[in-house]
Amino acid sequence: MVTIKDIANRLGIAPSTVSKGLNDAKDISPELKKLVLDTAIEMGYVTKRMKKETRKRLCIFVENMQYEMPGDFGFDIILGFKQAAIRNNWDVTVVPITPLLQLRDPYDRYMVKNNFHGGFLVGFALKDPWMSQLQTTTIPTVLFDNYIRKNPNVGYVGTDSFEGIDLAIDHLTELGHSKIALLNGSPNSMVTVNRYDAYISSMQSHDLKIDENLIAHGHYVEDSAKYHLPSLLKSGATAIVCGNDLLAIGVIKECARLNIKIPQELSVVGFDNLPIAEKITPALTTICQNRIDLGRNSYAALYWLIAKVPISKSLLRPHLIIRNSTAMLYTPQKRKKPPFL
Amino acid sequence: MVTIKDIANRLGIAPSTVSKGLNDAKDISPELKKLVLDTAIEMGYVTKRMKKETRKRLCIFVENMQYEMPGDFGFDIILGFKQAAIRNNWDVTVVPITPLLQLRDPYDRYMVKNNFHGGFLVGFALKDPWMSQLQTTTIPTVLFDNYIRKNPNVGYVGTDSFEGIDLAIDHLTELGHSKIALLNGSPNSMVTVNRYDAYISSMQSHDLKIDENLIAHGHYVEDSAKYHLPSLLKSGATAIVCGNDLLAIGVIKECARLNIKIPQELSVVGFDNLPIAEKITPALTTICQNRIDLGRNSYAALYWLIAKVPISKSLLRPHLIIRNSTAMLYTPQKRKKPPFL
Repeated sequence: MVTIKDIANRLGIAPSTVSKGLNDAKDISPELKKLVLDTAIEMGYVTKRMKKETRKRLCIFVENMQYEMPGDFGFDIILGFKQAAIRNNWDVTVVPITPLLQLRDPYDRYMVKNNFHGGFLVGFALKDPWMSQLQTTTIPTVLFDNYIRKNPNVGYVGTDSFEGIDLAIDHLTELGHSKIALLNGSPNSMVTVNRYDAYISSMQSHDLKIDENLIAHGHYVEDSAKYHLPSLLKSGATAIVCGNDLLAIGVIKECARLNIKIPQELSVVGFDNLPIAEKITPALTTICQNRIDLGRNSYAALYWLIAKVPISKSLLRPHLIIRNSTAMLYTPQKRKKPPFL
Repeated sequence: MVTIKDIANRLGIAPSTVSKGLNDAKDISPELKKLVLDTAIEMGYVTKRMKKETRKRLCIFVENMQYEMPGDFGFDIILGFKQAAIRNNWDVTVVPITPLLQLRDPYDRYMVKNNFHGGFLVGFALKDPWMSQLQTTTIPTVLFDNYIRKNPNVGYVGTDSFEGIDLAIDHLTELGHSKIALLNGSPNSMVTVNRYDAYISSMQSHDLKIDENLIAHGHYVEDSAKYHLPSLLKSGATAIVCGNDLLAIGVIKECARLNIKIPQELSVVGFDNLPIAEKITPALTTICQNRIDLGRNSYAALYWLIAKVPISKSLLRPHLIIRNSTAMLYTPQKRKKPPFL
């Protein structure tokens, strides 16, 4: 068990100085404070106070998404997490974060400095500064829709993309579609890789031919759809599974502009069930992840990581919400001639 | 909300008769009792008593493994589950099960008849009678090392096989091996499929050539190893990753019989860290799944399924235990001539 004295001996300074560094005192230089904290982390020091604390302090870091208003993508995730944490009377702080802020303090130092027992990271990109530090962190941490290999202190919570994409393709094949395209999102995202793998696997299990021309990689924004839609249509797509709802909205809007009728001429499936999915015309068929449940499950995973149970990944089942953007494949042969012709 | 009266109306019998069927009374024929129970399940009826009950009753069904003594494969899983359940004061019953017993009562009927709120199934095979019923069960259920698609009431808990196999191949490549074989287990097992996929993926990410002749499928028993070992050796394997410890033990014993030195001439890695792994000579390098943690995590997943959070899969990180069955690749060129030659 590492003590303040051990840290003092390692650094060749007085124990009282170490104490000042750990307790964020004013009468110690910032450089020395950083050195004390980093050494403490490296040596695995946990304050006696934190160990005794049954009321844990958790921090949710949010990036790249709205979260403060009901209907925001992050709102329900945080709400679900807080609802579950309340039952244990654990304290939850929400911190909006940016790559710049991550550069100011390494993750471990930030957590120890602010006395957080565990962290929940939402909306981070693979290239974020803290992501590489998570490879070696000793702080129990849950990542939303992101995965770190080989660190037993870090777990991944998200939606089972395989099930989600499979539900979409089930639905479209039941409607008679076989030329099903994938309009996927930003390449530097684990979710993108998962949904691509899921698409390939699901097409194969439905005995459908994989056509590379029916697979496009855009970005998870509305605007990206119009650049990829023409080539997918040209390659014969009668239905498109989109990596998220924003891409699907983009497809719907571009089709409106090009006078292509949805769902009669093209079926579209989204992913996420954002509030806009029901408001747009036609209303969007999509894969729904219940974000309150994701929040609750994230809290549960963090609880177990703090208890030293090495959760690797914990995924929830999504479900299909059928609205008006999908329909039976329209085949000209099936069109009946009006009786008067 | 379905009531006893609804069930009575559906069946055209008196509510009191329905009550007798639900409460396992003696003065009702077995056939009528079955009919009442099956109809209740189909209509989604939950006894008022069960709904009010905060002290849930859970059942662990164990098949195909020893579990009663410390050291048995199932012992720690059940212990971990019970330890976690105690904190909520939930009641846990352990029931050894066989395919024959499964044929006597469908899963849902068994659970409702015995007033269990949720089930944990350990050691089931894909072909077990209850497994197909799980596709549609409304009973919150956790499967150990098994997966059911598309049913939000059923979750899968296990070890992250991808991480495990990757750790084994990391270790062997660090020791200089590239002709790494896979001796996998019984084909009708999800774990087998996972470990095969993991092997392929890991070999690729380590830039190693995949040689079909270095992949063998046996069964998860010691005896199976000797049938596959010769061809793997003939194809140039210098290391073998085994689907479980029993296969690895089988390899070790057969090599002893054939006078092949482990680890000098062949490195062997197991999976599971059964107690025998440390007792055999040479002691077995293996991938360890902490079974107490698996039990705790299974309870956690069942807790959330009962709370209607649709856990799909919850996997734990295993870790590598290096013992004496693996060593650096022996390359003749490296052997130094004794100085007197």
